[in-house]
Amino acid sequence: MKYPIRSLEFKNNKLYLIDQRALPQQYKKFICENYRDVEFAIAEMVVRGAPAIGVTAAYGVVLAAFEFNELPIKQFLDQMHEACDIINSSRPTAVNLMWAIKRMRFFLIDNETPKNVLHKLKAEANQIADEDIRTNKKMGQFGNSLIPHKATILTHCNTGALATVEYGTALGVIRAAFEDGKEIFVYADETRPRLQGARLTAWELVQEGIPATLIADSVAATLIRDGKIDLILVGADRIAINGDCANKIGTFMLSVIAKVYDVPFYIVAPTTTIDFEIETGEEIEIEERSKEEVTHINGVQIAPENIDVYNPAFDVTPNENITAVITEKGIINKPFKENILKLK
Amino acid sequence: MKYPIRSLEFKNNKLYLIDQRALPQQYKKFICENYRDVEFAIAEMVVRGAPAIGVTAAYGVVLAAFEFNELPIKQFLDQMHEACDIINSSRPTAVNLMWAIKRMRFFLIDNETPKNVLHKLKAEANQIADEDIRTNKKMGQFGNSLIPHKATILTHCNTGALATVEYGTALGVIRAAFEDGKEIFVYADETRPRLQGARLTAWELVQEGIPATLIADSVAATLIRDGKIDLILVGADRIAINGDCANKIGTFMLSVIAKVYDVPFYIVAPTTTIDFEIETGEEIEIEERSKEEVTHINGVQIAPENIDVYNPAFDVTPNENITAVITEKGIINKPFKENILKLK
Repeated sequence: MKYPIRSLEFKNNKLYLIDQRALPQQYKKFICENYRDVEFAIAEMVVRGAPAIGVTAAYGVVLAAFEFNELPIKQFLDQMHEACDIINSSRPTAVNLMWAIKRMRFFLIDNETPKNVLHKLKAEANQIADEDIRTNKKMGQFGNSLIPHKATILTHCNTGALATVEYGTALGVIRAAFEDGKEIFVYADETRPRLQGARLTAWELVQEGIPATLIADSVAATLIRDGKIDLILVGADRIAINGDCANKIGTFMLSVIAKVYDVPFYIVAPTTTIDFEIETGEEIEIEERSKEEVTHINGVQIAPENIDVYNPAFDVTPNENITAVITEKGIINKPFKENILKLK
Repeated sequence: MKYPIRSLEFKNNKLYLIDQRALPQQYKKFICENYRDVEFAIAEMVVRGAPAIGVTAAYGVVLAAFEFNELPIKQFLDQMHEACDIINSSRPTAVNLMWAIKRMRFFLIDNETPKNVLHKLKAEANQIADEDIRTNKKMGQFGNSLIPHKATILTHCNTGALATVEYGTALGVIRAAFEDGKEIFVYADETRPRLQGARLTAWELVQEGIPATLIADSVAATLIRDGKIDLILVGADRIAINGDCANKIGTFMLSVIAKVYDVPFYIVAPTTTIDFEIETGEEIEIEERSKEEVTHINGVQIAPENIDVYNPAFDVTPNENITAVITEKGIINKPFKENILKLK
């Protein structure tokens, strides 16, 4: 059965998310009735992927406005800012979350009625969601221009429809090349510890009928060395002004191998992923997640109880390992800093 | 509870293996009553690790001799050679298996009674097991000379007591340094897909009280870059004359990162791991294992049913990425070919 892949939908004043913790075994929805559900959904990775997190957060602000719009404007705004703060702190690394919350806060002004603010917030969240889809299609077009016919593409983590509203960033480029009739082949890293590649990317590729093979993360290096990978496409959770990119743990490793063996390494991310407040990747906070993500899989224990675990969710790929950054405004080439600042 | 870690034991004419598929949740024995049980145990990875496979195979030949020693000598030898062939083909990459079988075949001669041959085979298998322990202790001593006080060591897969008869190869060196009072710290790669690091190495480290932290395989690159790893110790399944080493998938990736960031990368393996019949690693057959190792963990499905999988169990690390090879006969430095041929 082919499901429509849209990671989230706002209807009947509720936010319906595909519960990404349950895929691929189960396709089910997680319903957010209030902004605390949204905080939970982001923190627990019911929804993940920088762009999807941003849009989800925006709808979280809308849900807060539904909850508080009967209050007098001052209390309404106090509650709304508190809700924004809480949603904002649900995960630390992806900048799209902060960007979306900031964009929503713009409407939290006191010369309006709460009901008016609510309407505007809802329109804005819908706008952010629509923009995300258009942005992904644009990145798909720009990225596709770099994909040779019959290319074999390596990707890491999930950057597809599930990581966005629809279509995807790096996986969106793969979709665009496939829709364009190029006979591409995809290797998908399983992406430990959360297995977004095995669970989500493999699922999307199977749904679309795109020829693909799943590998353990440590297999990629031999494929790259053996000349079996034409290019690498990954997403990003935050991009510094100098082009350093934070992305899913394992991205840095791939980038080093790609550089040693001279394989093009592309980041695909909307310009909302650029953090114009930081100069380099060293300033990016890297989220550390729970030990259980490594010691247990689907509730089954795989490591001894009393072993320590270091579980960073992201790593930073230095700009020198990146060939180009594919955005909805075009392909950013080197020198990154100069070209990124033009987008500000 | 602290279990004695000895991967195998031959008593009452049966081979008792720690069932490594059940660890760390369960500590139980798998009993081989005949050589076909041994073939199964090796193929299904009840026992794994190149040296442990070699010793297990030797006892498999002993079990065959128990089975067939009532036959006339000619039929006995026919059956014995067939058993040797079957055990020999249980896994293709580790050369210790072939080496042990070859050593046992030496006793399959027709101017003996089957009962005499049986006695000699049993003595030889015990000898191989005893040698393995002595060899590991020796490697521990040589390797320990390279470990600085307070070193942080990265290791991959399991190369401990469970991969040998007792003590271990790379993990044996770690044991030796710890026993020597050096305040070492170990990072253990979980080692997908079979998770020997998470299941077995973490378990051994916890048993021994050696300070250690478990990581997903793709975390290692950032630790190496950030200067947090002083040296890397891994085992080998087969070593070519030029020093190229086949080892658990993921070893090659580590070796590239180590070379880029100038971190010493040591192979620890007995000289029985050297295959003097092959010049380079290109001649080593790399075992591909089942799709289910990647798509399922402990019987739980984590990837969609109809995704293809590429699952090589090993990769080859080229000699230029290796600092030295630690054996029971000493530390082999460059030029590898010249120094390896001296050991023939």
